[in-house]
Amino acid sequence: MNYKIIGHIIKIILLVEAVFMLPAIAYCLADGDRTACVSFAVSIAIILAVVALLHFLCRGYSDKFFAKEGLITVGASWIFMSIFGALPFVFSSAIPNFIDAMFEIVSGFTTTGASILTDIEALPRGLLYWRSFSHWLGGMGVLVFILAIVPLSSKGSGYSMHLMRAESPGPDVGKLVPKVRSTAKILYIIYFGITALDVFFLMLGGISFFEAICTAFGTAGTGGFSVKNDSLMSFSPYVQNVCTVFMMLFGVNFSCYYLLIKGNFKSVLKDEEFRLYIGVAVASTVIITINTLSYYGTTGEAIHHAAFQVASIMTTTGFGTVDSDLWPALSKTVLLFLMFCGACAGSTGGGIKCGRVVLYLKMLRQRVAKALHPDRVKKITMNNQPVNSDVLSATGSYLIAYVLIIIVSTLLISVDNFSFETNFSAVMATFNNIGPGFGAVGAVCNYSGFSMFSKIILTIDMLAGRLEIFPILVLFSTQTWKND
Amino acid sequence: MNYKIIGHIIKIILLVEAVFMLPAIAYCLADGDRTACVSFAVSIAIILAVVALLHFLCRGYSDKFFAKEGLITVGASWIFMSIFGALPFVFSSAIPNFIDAMFEIVSGFTTTGASILTDIEALPRGLLYWRSFSHWLGGMGVLVFILAIVPLSSKGSGYSMHLMRAESPGPDVGKLVPKVRSTAKILYIIYFGITALDVFFLMLGGISFFEAICTAFGTAGTGGFSVKNDSLMSFSPYVQNVCTVFMMLFGVNFSCYYLLIKGNFKSVLKDEEFRLYIGVAVASTVIITINTLSYYGTTGEAIHHAAFQVASIMTTTGFGTVDSDLWPALSKTVLLFLMFCGACAGSTGGGIKCGRVVLYLKMLRQRVAKALHPDRVKKITMNNQPVNSDVLSATGSYLIAYVLIIIVSTLLISVDNFSFETNFSAVMATFNNIGPGFGAVGAVCNYSGFSMFSKIILTIDMLAGRLEIFPILVLFSTQTWKND
Repeated sequence: MNYKIIGHIIKIILLVEAVFMLPAIAYCLADGDRTACVSFAVSIAIILAVVALLHFLCRGYSDKFFAKEGLITVGASWIFMSIFGALPFVFSSAIPNFIDAMFEIVSGFTTTGASILTDIEALPRGLLYWRSFSHWLGGMGVLVFILAIVPLSSKGSGYSMHLMRAESPGPDVGKLVPKVRSTAKILYIIYFGITALDVFFLMLGGISFFEAICTAFGTAGTGGFSVKNDSLMSFSPYVQNVCTVFMMLFGVNFSCYYLLIKGNFKSVLKDEEFRLYIGVAVASTVIITINTLSYYGTTGEAIHHAAFQVASIMTTTGFGTVDSDLWPALSKTVLLFLMFCGACAGSTGGGIKCGRVVLYLKMLRQRVAKALHPDRVKKITMNNQPVNSDVLSATGSYLIAYVLIIIVSTLLISVDNFSFETNFSAVMATFNNIGPGFGAVGAVCNYSGFSMFSKIILTIDMLAGRLEIFPILVLFSTQTWKND
Repeated sequence: MNYKIIGHIIKIILLVEAVFMLPAIAYCLADGDRTACVSFAVSIAIILAVVALLHFLCRGYSDKFFAKEGLITVGASWIFMSIFGALPFVFSSAIPNFIDAMFEIVSGFTTTGASILTDIEALPRGLLYWRSFSHWLGGMGVLVFILAIVPLSSKGSGYSMHLMRAESPGPDVGKLVPKVRSTAKILYIIYFGITALDVFFLMLGGISFFEAICTAFGTAGTGGFSVKNDSLMSFSPYVQNVCTVFMMLFGVNFSCYYLLIKGNFKSVLKDEEFRLYIGVAVASTVIITINTLSYYGTTGEAIHHAAFQVASIMTTTGFGTVDSDLWPALSKTVLLFLMFCGACAGSTGGGIKCGRVVLYLKMLRQRVAKALHPDRVKKITMNNQPVNSDVLSATGSYLIAYVLIIIVSTLLISVDNFSFETNFSAVMATFNNIGPGFGAVGAVCNYSGFSMFSKIILTIDMLAGRLEIFPILVLFSTQTWKND
């Protein structure tokens, strides 16, 4: 294992993290909040010290970089970034316990949006900014960001691809353009552009710039942290509708936007993943609207809330406009399984991804065909392209890992003796990076009731969900640490 | 499609079913229960009429028999057998509604043991016998029984294998001996032998012959229907312990017994599926014992109930000695996930099967190895034999189908507005052929509260679970009914 290059990359990430803490300090200064200001300053100082140490330890790193180094770098980067990102919460005493602070910032970076805070509005703006900004950075990925701005190696893009593949969601990560660095740049330009549009439309609704950017960060990263205690319930229906639309937009595979920019509308409309994504969202909204009709005054209001909650859960954002925990069982079950489905691959959303669901349905159809006629079997295609058999096998294994993690996590946290609905939905909501679940972790509740042990399990689940399991799984695998 | 041969085989199955109803008549006569007696006689008359009709319609059937015919025959046989098996319940007015009666007998044949009856002890002995016997026949499989006793075709065993494969549980159905017919015979001899032993040991506990054979039928088929309202709660600890041991025995792959008979002890002890099966059972018993210690007077009592419930759920039998719905969340969650794991392939137990779980763990390990070193990948082996890639792909697809059916079924039955725990565990308990779940379908409750619509869904789930999905799935697939 080439530890030095891993250290070198982590060093750059921490440096970037320190830079991104500066706007938080600006907010603290503007509000005259001395404690918050100092806590960020101390955090930055510690980060810089660690950066200096890593720089010293990792001098003369070699370029030897394989898939293994790619996975470890991504897994370790996210853990380091979270450890240091949690410091301002601890130092400011906003979240004095380090485990709690880790839970909160991992929930931010992984765009989960699950919180252990009981009074969000009591936090200084600097901390609220940092909490929401973590969604934006984690949404598209910090390594993708680094790839976009820093030339990591002089020797070609061989290992950029390993990093990109390990951090980006989806069964088969493709490059938009031949160069990884240019792909990363394009992704961040699109990301920045749609976020800016979101801020613009939110401000038209009359909310402050601070509320608008924090809400936009939560929407763009499909995170779900809000600056209000009641999520988005007290915002106007216009603002809520803007969020519904933008949540759905950020759940689309970003390669679709690249195709649109290049004028290729037809390919987007014919994209099988995009079609499933829209189809499932519309069908779920219709079912929930009918099922909750008696809860609301008008059909329009029922559609409004159904569409918002469907967009929020399916894109794995986790904002709320109503307490969906009070809805009938059918609506709650629809939402619970939307958590499973998730958004599109190559978006900022989590879950198992619509692209994988499309492949699962095709694999199943092929298996039925094979059972009926063992001798006549057609290859599986996606958007008329044959799918590589290794991608299929990896997609199959992904489901195994996914089910296994849900089972083990639910078992572990059930030690706290909450109801099965609470435990199962807590695991689904953290592992799929949604945020709120049902029962004791419902839309108007939070995760503060869990024990420290359960919080650690759920923190690991959030990381495993965001990084699509393997970069975290390899950290726990003995195979990784055996000498080659 | 060769409809005539399918009809021919269904005809034989119905004939066998009519013969097996005769002992029920004997019990009715002994008890002087005229209504029950007549209801069985009328049922047999109807079956014989249908047999005559099928005989007439399927004259001159050809031997053309492929995988497709195998799947359809198995799926259709089980549906026909259930329709006619439900008649005595309807005619005797024990279960006047046909949907309810179908639920009950499908629950019997599929060895689920979920009941819609609220007072079991009120039923005449003839009906109780028939209800419990359905477990025994369904456990090892009616087509396997037919294969053992009737030479279906003069032209070799080509299509016996298709039938055996479609009805027997497990990722890769092997023959014990080169001839399918001899394999089927050996399986039924072992099955009959262990059942007889079970009856013997149960009777040593002082219960009546009738109670002993009905309980043994429920144990052997890993079904779970009892002749008492409180399942096995009122039986002595000795009888309960006999059941614990025999439930575990019937959950073992029957090929292990064949190996034992041939003196090959070593292979059994080294069998990877067998090891996982025992390992999971022991670990679960230990966890539940510790977790429920405060519920019972002594450690011995806690172990007694923990071991019984683990054996009952893991082998997918569903007998109960306590109301496990009152246990703490951890113990309930352990039981819920044991439903998923299930017993060994090639046993009478249901669930996803330990053999598949072994393969899933190996596929996952291989995927981690591949992620770390894409160029060095070892083949997956099972008991030191390489596993065919088609078996792996089928095992992967099985998980997809499994998860999909759980999601769709839970969604559909949540229309009845029970809690998520009730709905999810009802689907898990029927689809995995266990019987009782949690909440409204807990150990001391039953399925009578569900709507007719939900009962139909759960009935289909029981069939899909017992036949390992594909024979039922192909009945609903448009690919099946397209003209070739």
